[in-house]
Amino acid sequence: MTVIEFPTSDKATGDDLRDQVRDAARRARGASAELAQATRGAKDALLQDMADELVKRAPEILEANERDVAAARESGMTEALIDRLILSTGRVEAMADGLRTVAGLPDPVGEVLRGQVLPNGVQLRQVRVPLGVVGIVYEGRPNVTVDAAGLTLKSGNAVLLRGSSSAESSNTALVWILRDVVARHGLPMDAVQLLPCHDRASVHHLITARGLVDVVIPRGGAGLISAVVEQSTVPAIETGVGNCHVYVDSSADLDMALRILLNSKARRPSVCNSAETFLVHADIAEEFLPRAIAELSEAGVTVHGDEQVVAAGGPNVVPATDEDWDTEYLSLDIAAAVVESLPAAVEHIREHGSGHTEAIVTSDFRASQQFTAQVDAAAVMVNASTAFTDGGEFGMGAEIGISTQKLHSRGPMGLPELTSTKWLAFGDGHVRPGSAPAKPGS
Amino acid sequence: MTVIEFPTSDKATGDDLRDQVRDAARRARGASAELAQATRGAKDALLQDMADELVKRAPEILEANERDVAAARESGMTEALIDRLILSTGRVEAMADGLRTVAGLPDPVGEVLRGQVLPNGVQLRQVRVPLGVVGIVYEGRPNVTVDAAGLTLKSGNAVLLRGSSSAESSNTALVWILRDVVARHGLPMDAVQLLPCHDRASVHHLITARGLVDVVIPRGGAGLISAVVEQSTVPAIETGVGNCHVYVDSSADLDMALRILLNSKARRPSVCNSAETFLVHADIAEEFLPRAIAELSEAGVTVHGDEQVVAAGGPNVVPATDEDWDTEYLSLDIAAAVVESLPAAVEHIREHGSGHTEAIVTSDFRASQQFTAQVDAAAVMVNASTAFTDGGEFGMGAEIGISTQKLHSRGPMGLPELTSTKWLAFGDGHVRPGSAPAKPGS
Repeated sequence: MTVIEFPTSDKATGDDLRDQVRDAARRARGASAELAQATRGAKDALLQDMADELVKRAPEILEANERDVAAARESGMTEALIDRLILSTGRVEAMADGLRTVAGLPDPVGEVLRGQVLPNGVQLRQVRVPLGVVGIVYEGRPNVTVDAAGLTLKSGNAVLLRGSSSAESSNTALVWILRDVVARHGLPMDAVQLLPCHDRASVHHLITARGLVDVVIPRGGAGLISAVVEQSTVPAIETGVGNCHVYVDSSADLDMALRILLNSKARRPSVCNSAETFLVHADIAEEFLPRAIAELSEAGVTVHGDEQVVAAGGPNVVPATDEDWDTEYLSLDIAAAVVESLPAAVEHIREHGSGHTEAIVTSDFRASQQFTAQVDAAAVMVNASTAFTDGGEFGMGAEIGISTQKLHSRGPMGLPELTSTKWLAFGDGHVRPGSAPAKPGS
Repeated sequence: MTVIEFPTSDKATGDDLRDQVRDAARRARGASAELAQATRGAKDALLQDMADELVKRAPEILEANERDVAAARESGMTEALIDRLILSTGRVEAMADGLRTVAGLPDPVGEVLRGQVLPNGVQLRQVRVPLGVVGIVYEGRPNVTVDAAGLTLKSGNAVLLRGSSSAESSNTALVWILRDVVARHGLPMDAVQLLPCHDRASVHHLITARGLVDVVIPRGGAGLISAVVEQSTVPAIETGVGNCHVYVDSSADLDMALRILLNSKARRPSVCNSAETFLVHADIAEEFLPRAIAELSEAGVTVHGDEQVVAAGGPNVVPATDEDWDTEYLSLDIAAAVVESLPAAVEHIREHGSGHTEAIVTSDFRASQQFTAQVDAAAVMVNASTAFTDGGEFGMGAEIGISTQKLHSRGPMGLPELTSTKWLAFGDGHVRPGSAPAKPGS
């Protein structure tokens, strides 16, 4: 097999790198204007062809990926991180399937959200339009490259991808294959661009390209996300940090509570919707704690408990420190505390939660009402696992991330969440009466 | 009349001021949790009583305002700015009427936006919830204090008001009257707070109180808005900068075009939806320009024209500089250029527009379609004045500002735009199948 010569970046630094990122953003802006006009048919055909092409050219992708993996091994990367980086034929097929799924989803662009005829006869309607240029900053998973490209293109946006340097060869191969298909479809290649990743400064240049980039979405760990959100002058969407709780109410069916707790923690500890703390009502603590600790232990989970939890005993119980309540373990660890009441549980969650997903297990109607009303999070579950907070589970078909902020979009973000709106007004020479002096403040 | 002793701030500086602002934000956060649970009935009764109380205590408000106005005159403030600052019985009544209007609007909180039963039986719904704590940074108009408090409280939010130091006495009087009414209704006074305004640093502390404040909305001139948006680590909503265009297509009814142009520019030149540039298709320039210049001149408007416009002559025509195309005059000035085609008009708008409101005058269907599809702005008008971009005109009842950004909300922002959402899921012990190894990237 011949090694494909994908274009290599010239490793610019300083002002040159800034200019390179800003030029890319400008080209993306131009491309986005064209893409915003693309029909659903054109976009779906593009995504289907991209999927076919990825599968067809999987050998090239895997060859590029091998180089990344070899370099990662040489640099001493942990096997866990290498597992995120490594691609296989199956994983390339999974990316292609992801594109086909997105092709099958409704196009949000053009959807009429509201509309009316104003008293003066002007016809007004609010329609969905693409955001424009979306920047994605992410870590070592090459599949994010394809996922993000598929979702942003389908929603009519251009995308600037800033992946990890550890995946540079893989991402370059993927992006150039996608760009080939874009060009073959007569659409602007610059709708999909990979930004230089050899220097952290390129992230800074992307997130400060205000006026050129419409939104930045960080996907990765808490450190990446808070750095992007705090330094960005481009509007950013905070995603994915999940310090999720399961509160077991005094009225809970304890079998159900155990099932939900285990599933919330141990199904996939490394994802953001996994539970990191459970809270038990004092009235049932004596009965529930030994069972919970035994089952969690059996699943390999270490419980970081408060005094009462530690007193309940068990092999895998250690005393919690103050930090435990704020920690997103993403591992087989969970913090645990006994609370005196539902309001105390709500208060604990208010203090320590990250606004991602919070669950209550209860058989009491009023408790369910109080918890859902008072807990402030993207998703609140009653008698269901925290693991359900997911674009796929919510029927969105795909997601670009889970927003934990309140502005724009909260919770799993699918295609409609990658759009903005535009008001259109149709008149027949209508003017607004009254050139009277301004009423104050208007 | 006795002078009311409103509490005065202690003019803290440095870290003390930062602590003061952050303490206020923490108290607001506590208050917001209570307010989020308030029923529409309770909130409407609150707003009605606030309106009555403002009217009843108008003399105290006017007395406080007189002190501000006297100080402003002494400091040499222009009469235009003093006109924004000065209150009268009529203006206090207008503020009260504003509160009553908001009381009459539907409550967005609790509205179910989407909902379904998932294939596994989990009942899912997305409901509107308040944003939480809203910061408003504004300039010398005291009525913004009351408008903003009414809109934020009705949408279940707590509000931190950071007005101009020039309106300190007026704002203090207004806020303490509002807080009195809040307390009388058994709601937390700290839902409405006035932040210290003696030091610009308080703005900085507000817009960097990430985690305590959910959103910041600047209301004022371009300088204020860009400073807030660029320095904020709290999500901010860009509002109100309007470099709006009227494009007169070759197919336009010229009488209609003149009417719309005049209304867009001269109805109220100082507001953000007024037109700042008009573009004329070359085919009709010779016929349209002399008429447009004559009518604009008569209305007192100076036309800053490109070569062809200047060549058309007229007493109030001056040559445009490069800056004119990017200037939001907010005065009886307008830039004017001849364009060769509709795409050239779109291109000019793309380069110079601020994404607020853009209008086309045309009788050609396809031209109307192209313009509305290709122009990227919060509002696009066909054969209607730019002056219609307004929450009141759009039937929202009231607005807190006009967003010119694409994230969260675009265009006039009413009550629903001051909310976020929350997903609620109701199960019966549901857990998510599959603890299989992660598929990549999920």
